[in-house]
Amino acid sequence: MRLAEQAVFTAHPNPMVGCVLVRDGEVVGEGWHEVAGAAHAEINALQDAGDKAKGATAYVTLEPCAHHGKTPPCSTALIAAGVSEVVVACGDPHPMVDGKGLKALAAAGITVRSGLLQQQVEQLLAGFLSRVIRIRPRVRLKIACSIDGRIAMANGQSHWITGEEARADVQRLRASSGAIMTGIGTVLADDPSLTVRDAALNPHGKQPIRVILDSELRMPMAAKMLALPGNTLVFCQNDQNAPGLVDAGAEVVRIDGVNGQIDLDAVLQQLADREVNDLLVEAGPAIAGQLIEQKLVDEFVIYQAPHIMGSETMGMVATPGWIDLADRQNLQITDSVQIGSDTRITAIPAD
Amino acid sequence: MRLAEQAVFTAHPNPMVGCVLVRDGEVVGEGWHEVAGAAHAEINALQDAGDKAKGATAYVTLEPCAHHGKTPPCSTALIAAGVSEVVVACGDPHPMVDGKGLKALAAAGITVRSGLLQQQVEQLLAGFLSRVIRIRPRVRLKIACSIDGRIAMANGQSHWITGEEARADVQRLRASSGAIMTGIGTVLADDPSLTVRDAALNPHGKQPIRVILDSELRMPMAAKMLALPGNTLVFCQNDQNAPGLVDAGAEVVRIDGVNGQIDLDAVLQQLADREVNDLLVEAGPAIAGQLIEQKLVDEFVIYQAPHIMGSETMGMVATPGWIDLADRQNLQITDSVQIGSDTRITAIPAD
Repeated sequence: MRLAEQAVFTAHPNPMVGCVLVRDGEVVGEGWHEVAGAAHAEINALQDAGDKAKGATAYVTLEPCAHHGKTPPCSTALIAAGVSEVVVACGDPHPMVDGKGLKALAAAGITVRSGLLQQQVEQLLAGFLSRVIRIRPRVRLKIACSIDGRIAMANGQSHWITGEEARADVQRLRASSGAIMTGIGTVLADDPSLTVRDAALNPHGKQPIRVILDSELRMPMAAKMLALPGNTLVFCQNDQNAPGLVDAGAEVVRIDGVNGQIDLDAVLQQLADREVNDLLVEAGPAIAGQLIEQKLVDEFVIYQAPHIMGSETMGMVATPGWIDLADRQNLQITDSVQIGSDTRITAIPAD
Repeated sequence: MRLAEQAVFTAHPNPMVGCVLVRDGEVVGEGWHEVAGAAHAEINALQDAGDKAKGATAYVTLEPCAHHGKTPPCSTALIAAGVSEVVVACGDPHPMVDGKGLKALAAAGITVRSGLLQQQVEQLLAGFLSRVIRIRPRVRLKIACSIDGRIAMANGQSHWITGEEARADVQRLRASSGAIMTGIGTVLADDPSLTVRDAALNPHGKQPIRVILDSELRMPMAAKMLALPGNTLVFCQNDQNAPGLVDAGAEVVRIDGVNGQIDLDAVLQQLADREVNDLLVEAGPAIAGQLIEQKLVDEFVIYQAPHIMGSETMGMVATPGWIDLADRQNLQITDSVQIGSDTRITAIPAD
């Protein structure tokens, strides 16, 4: 798992995978998968072990692949190296694997076991598993707010609510995501970049897809992000202005509306089709509220600054349909940690 | 300090005081002051030590008294017992003491030292010191809110935002306070009791003063709290309805207005005159906002429930004058702890 996590910023859309080879109670090889196209974890571990792989047990976080993708199948390599046992945390639900890897190993006489630290690894691979199994990315909603839950003054002023360390942490969240989504309101108000700025977090120069929800396609051709490295994907209901925007560098996709709003289920499916494992939402109250009301948020990441911003402000979510206390969204807090002078609260929906 | 803290629910309006007598590196006596009228900490420790007090060092959290109050002066008793040294955390600023205790001890040939754990003890005695030095209580503002900072639905619904454990903790806050303040809006909406309900927190049956800010004296004579044990003190600007309310059991005090609002400085001074060390404010957004805007809150105690309540709700403070981000109230978080499924954040103003 620790080896796998080395690739948190680089592996996606591939899953993070780590492999350890053990012979006679001794680690003889370690490997992890860094980036799509490069060797898989098992291959790196076998290479690290050399002759010592023979008779070893391979611990792998995910079922070894059985297909020729950009690299040859790992199950074949494990068999060829003479590994005697393979222990995996969980199966790979990808249609190209989906049990075929374990089956090939077993057919070659290798002892195969599954389920070691399965829950922890499934958490580590939540984005990948969501995309493959549910055909939609894991959705993480990031909110930067004051202790009274406000994200901006009524006049829009919001720079900066949280501190430098929290903003650096958001960069790590971005770098671990395949796409970052916001609304046209945020684009028009702030003209954000939505990029990973620190090269250390982005060693291969690949930027998350910038996803803009823009029903009426009001996106300005001069929007800063259109000139930045990486792709900008604009979802709209009315694509009349598409040609100019495409010329300016955007990809425009028309999606039907549901109750006058862009169909968020369809958006998420489109992003899964583009191999986005993790979608980070950094949006205003309208989109945040819609996602929550439609039960589409998988994880909340709330950066809470030690300020009271007061009443002449904007709240974190617009939920016009929640009239009764029972309508509220219950959360289960999974982590709470001090980041600089702010508190980062991670939570999942509790109902 | 630990002995002193035994009296957190009972000593007020007196300060919590603890005393330890040590001779030849051995604790020979311990005492604390439980309740006004009962023996002071030093007397209890001397009694506990008996003959062994002779030649001992007395560690006392607060300067021993030098005056005949409800009990004889402790400095006299320490001298009579033959204590050889007295170490105090801090001086007692009360006009009846104010150095006279230490002076009497020194004049009797006892070695006197001061300042041991002074900061911690001053924190423990913050309410008492505030009342004596600043002639106003320490003001603690308690807020029960959701993670998005909301205290009620727009329709007023707010029972219960926080869990049972958090509400039990509020009972402890109440029991350690000399008065609990709210506004007439809360009285009219919720008809609260504002009492300490658990007898274990209130062994002497003394209820905090219930303080109601009620400019136009709209308090109903049938308000539940008027029939409960303890005193209800209603501050108003217009005391036309006072006679009926006084008949119903309230004390009514007219205070001049400042900008159309009851003068909060005058209210706090009145409470200090009534020997209130700690004032717990459990009020709606208007009073909370006024107290914060006027820099009258000494400590924030925020119980944050893991819910998102959304936009059709009431915020924790009304601050109509805060238009710019720079107007916000910065906090310094001094403690953050899980209470049941809620988080209790304690903070002080940071500017």
